[in-house]
Amino acid sequence: MNQVICTVDVVLLTLKDETLKVALLKREREPFKGVAALPGGYIHPNEDMDAQDAALRVLNAKTGIEAPYLEQLATFSGPARDPRGWSVSIAYYALVPYHIIEKAGHPDVKLVSVDRPLVLPFDHKAIVETAVARLRGKSQYSSLPCYLAGDTFTLPQLQRIYESLMGEPLNKVSFRRKMTEMDMLKPIEGQMEAAGAHRPAQLYRLKPEFRHQLQLLARGL
Amino acid sequence: MNQVICTVDVVLLTLKDETLKVALLKREREPFKGVAALPGGYIHPNEDMDAQDAALRVLNAKTGIEAPYLEQLATFSGPARDPRGWSVSIAYYALVPYHIIEKAGHPDVKLVSVDRPLVLPFDHKAIVETAVARLRGKSQYSSLPCYLAGDTFTLPQLQRIYESLMGEPLNKVSFRRKMTEMDMLKPIEGQMEAAGAHRPAQLYRLKPEFRHQLQLLARGL
Repeated sequence: MNQVICTVDVVLLTLKDETLKVALLKREREPFKGVAALPGGYIHPNEDMDAQDAALRVLNAKTGIEAPYLEQLATFSGPARDPRGWSVSIAYYALVPYHIIEKAGHPDVKLVSVDRPLVLPFDHKAIVETAVARLRGKSQYSSLPCYLAGDTFTLPQLQRIYESLMGEPLNKVSFRRKMTEMDMLKPIEGQMEAAGAHRPAQLYRLKPEFRHQLQLLARGL
Repeated sequence: MNQVICTVDVVLLTLKDETLKVALLKREREPFKGVAALPGGYIHPNEDMDAQDAALRVLNAKTGIEAPYLEQLATFSGPARDPRGWSVSIAYYALVPYHIIEKAGHPDVKLVSVDRPLVLPFDHKAIVETAVARLRGKSQYSSLPCYLAGDTFTLPQLQRIYESLMGEPLNKVSFRRKMTEMDMLKPIEGQMEAAGAHRPAQLYRLKPEFRHQLQLLARGL
């Protein structure tokens, strides 16, 4: 039996004020006790069904948050990333609408803009950067950004989420055509949202089959 | 310290006779001794710099092959995938031109078409399927298929490789435009390949900076 430390880490991403933020948590024990880091922990072979199960357990235990969407990011490994020894971290990223984090209200969870220079222990900076690049890349051809919206949203709200992630304005007509092509949204009958000076906008939600399963575009946005 | 078995597995893919094949190797020891499976093994904390290093070491030790291109695929984990206990396999996929496998000439390496029904131990079938889906998906918008070509190739040869992976004929003009857009090929001065009844075709190779680093298309093929 080889001695490799097996952990999971979770990059929890959310949009607040149209800024992409990552959730950091003060570490409760050594190494790096008291330092803000990604929520993470050991795999528990006696209770985890797989690494994803471990990631969901650790996230919930440490932040009180149930992530509606979580996906494996990559595995980071080596002798130097953790002072305790040769270690593997199976990293996941979770997309969580801001209101869920607010409602969980964990006092030690800090949201930090991913575009500010981050100083993090272990190789957590590289893990966050990998997650942000993956999210931004996949936003160009999938339903991934929808998981940052609330339960219901208007098309202009969804377009702003895509634009925040992609960092550029999108053409409204072409954006709507792509959303229609993905066929993942369901209008909520009779529900409209007042939109200031504009006429009220139709509210949508994700079709049930796409709440945990990504939808892809054959060609990008 | 939690007791998790940490291994790496390698899905070595090659094209032979325009058919995508995976390399299998008879297992030398229990569990599943004598059964054809993916080349894999334990991480060796005393010699591996990271999991990718372990994958390259295991592949070379077991098959004699040095993979020119190897990429992390995903990590598979859980209590049931390996009879020895709760285990993690950090899986990689390697793309290797057929002539390299032929030259290594390992007597126990068997190449099997990925489109035939595979019966494999552990969760190796799921690992192979994930690798094939990743390769076919990425072929649509990257230089990935080039790693299945030899050192030098003509554009018609490269197009046939893309077509074999994507399973559909591609338009020659648009294929060439996309290859130009990726700007990763370098014509070899004065080198042409005779092409039967056709006029000789220019030979190309990958520019050095793309030999181990993927090039992406902004929009797919």
